[in-house]
Amino acid sequence: MELKNDLILRAARGEAIERYPVWLMRQAGRILPEYRAVRSKLSGFKELVETPEFAAEVTIQPVDILDVDAAIIFSDILVVPEAMGLEYQMLEQKGPWFEKTIQTMDDLKYAETNFDIEDRLGYVLEAIRLTKKELNGRVPLIGFAGAPWTIFCYMVEGKGSKTFSESRKMLYTNPTLAHELLNRITDVTISYLKAQVNAGAQMLQLFDSWAGILGTEQYAEFGLRYLDKIANAINEVPLTLFSKGAINSVNDLAKLNCNTIGLDWNMDAVAIRKEVGETRTLQGNLDPCALYASHAEVEKSTINMLNRFESQRHIVNLGHGVYPDIDPEKVKTFIKTVKNYEIRF
Amino acid sequence: MELKNDLILRAARGEAIERYPVWLMRQAGRILPEYRAVRSKLSGFKELVETPEFAAEVTIQPVDILDVDAAIIFSDILVVPEAMGLEYQMLEQKGPWFEKTIQTMDDLKYAETNFDIEDRLGYVLEAIRLTKKELNGRVPLIGFAGAPWTIFCYMVEGKGSKTFSESRKMLYTNPTLAHELLNRITDVTISYLKAQVNAGAQMLQLFDSWAGILGTEQYAEFGLRYLDKIANAINEVPLTLFSKGAINSVNDLAKLNCNTIGLDWNMDAVAIRKEVGETRTLQGNLDPCALYASHAEVEKSTINMLNRFESQRHIVNLGHGVYPDIDPEKVKTFIKTVKNYEIRF
Repeated sequence: MELKNDLILRAARGEAIERYPVWLMRQAGRILPEYRAVRSKLSGFKELVETPEFAAEVTIQPVDILDVDAAIIFSDILVVPEAMGLEYQMLEQKGPWFEKTIQTMDDLKYAETNFDIEDRLGYVLEAIRLTKKELNGRVPLIGFAGAPWTIFCYMVEGKGSKTFSESRKMLYTNPTLAHELLNRITDVTISYLKAQVNAGAQMLQLFDSWAGILGTEQYAEFGLRYLDKIANAINEVPLTLFSKGAINSVNDLAKLNCNTIGLDWNMDAVAIRKEVGETRTLQGNLDPCALYASHAEVEKSTINMLNRFESQRHIVNLGHGVYPDIDPEKVKTFIKTVKNYEIRF
Repeated sequence: MELKNDLILRAARGEAIERYPVWLMRQAGRILPEYRAVRSKLSGFKELVETPEFAAEVTIQPVDILDVDAAIIFSDILVVPEAMGLEYQMLEQKGPWFEKTIQTMDDLKYAETNFDIEDRLGYVLEAIRLTKKELNGRVPLIGFAGAPWTIFCYMVEGKGSKTFSESRKMLYTNPTLAHELLNRITDVTISYLKAQVNAGAQMLQLFDSWAGILGTEQYAEFGLRYLDKIANAINEVPLTLFSKGAINSVNDLAKLNCNTIGLDWNMDAVAIRKEVGETRTLQGNLDPCALYASHAEVEKSTINMLNRFESQRHIVNLGHGVYPDIDPEKVKTFIKTVKNYEIRF
């Protein structure tokens, strides 16, 4: 099926574009009343993630309602550790919680790699297939996974944390176990991403949400090393790497075999472009809080942000997932401003 | 009373030192069994903060037990917003919680500036006076406060947060209110720090724990601007500014009228020294998680860290507060390694 809008794929590959493509991290879910209507019919977040029909429905909502240039499959990065053997719950107001965690070599029995992706993660693949069919070529569909370091943090910590000191502790006390676990996550992630492509994903993004808690050297050893492995294994579709908070590592990240680097709202697009040149597409990076301001202010900050990129290798996004209490009308203003922005190259 | 050990003051001023001074953020409280013994006699954290005898006792414990080169008064940065009109509770496992928060101009009635510091924060000043007396000149006593931006976050958000999006929202929706509140916090903080000096504090540190959630421009406007005001107002004793996570702003921070810049464990001492030169003392920055490793590894990472500074303008510390489950014996190895390190200038 031919794509009617392939802007984002062209921008990722560095090909000519007539205007900037735009989408939002967390666009599926969170802000739309239409999403909450679907969500309220179900027992909880996990039922939504695990029911392909509903996942497909909320994936397509922002394409219909917000007019974004890509859909991203509604899912969660924690489906991977769960498939490997660590079941999780999503607690209201508290976030994810794992009963078991990985602390010793023996615990690696809960970090399986030898399983069939279709068997344990078939619900995501089915959601991708359904979405793809219903999208009917309107915009590309993005698949995603958590980066190994971030998944590692949840598997060791068992929940969110301000410092992730348990996870970082293992890097010092048992680096062998840490690398073994990271390798396992990496292997499964590669299979999972390839399965997403086979199911219909036309672009992929890796989210390294906790990249920023490691110093440069540790992130090179325990983060970038595994992103490198994944980037080298994925050649089927354009790949985006988003390492939130890794301000000191973003230039090294850009050397990996990927198309696009995601910038968080604290990263300086001008400085990074100078370092990276036109070898990579940059994605981002409006501060999600800018959408709390008036429509006129949203327009102004969006234009200011766009002015800092000035390259056909730019995919427009926020610098973080959209916050739940943002007015969807402000998101529309953001998107409209991007679409009306005249590119000068 | 003459100081028997003034190493840290000399290092802060850039004077000659015979070895590096060392202390730990959060050294008072958290890790010592002797601290927990005192704590268990009381109703909670706040009673400890508010009772000068006990606060003085736990302040001196690390000097006795860990042999650090400075004491830091046991207190909390949230005593300032409370004195201004927002009472807080410290909830077990959950952290601080404020019943009221600042959302509108009208709420500024809970952000008073016109009060006597001795009247509302006398318990901290009394703790300083007691500690000073009991220290008897063994090591200098450090006073501290939260930086205006960080205090602002608590006054607006009312509790901890991963994103502090409510606080950041105000920067976009009501910058006038934000600046008014920041100005008020700044005024009170200056009076409070001066009162600490009058009570006996020989060095001061400002903690900007949430600096890292703002981009460079916003941190300049809502963070650095107020640190600058404080730095210019405090000339009595050496001042340290610690803006955690402000990797892109640390060089601008170093231009303020202070003696010492604190580095978190992700900041690159070599690069920052190159930028800052010998105009400022750098404090830090061993990863607190390094103390989870074996004694031999602790020694090794401490030496590696020390090698990256190589200047008499270095005050040794961790790059973050010591974590609660660290073995005090590992802290002793850290301190001993610093003290045995031969400086070459």
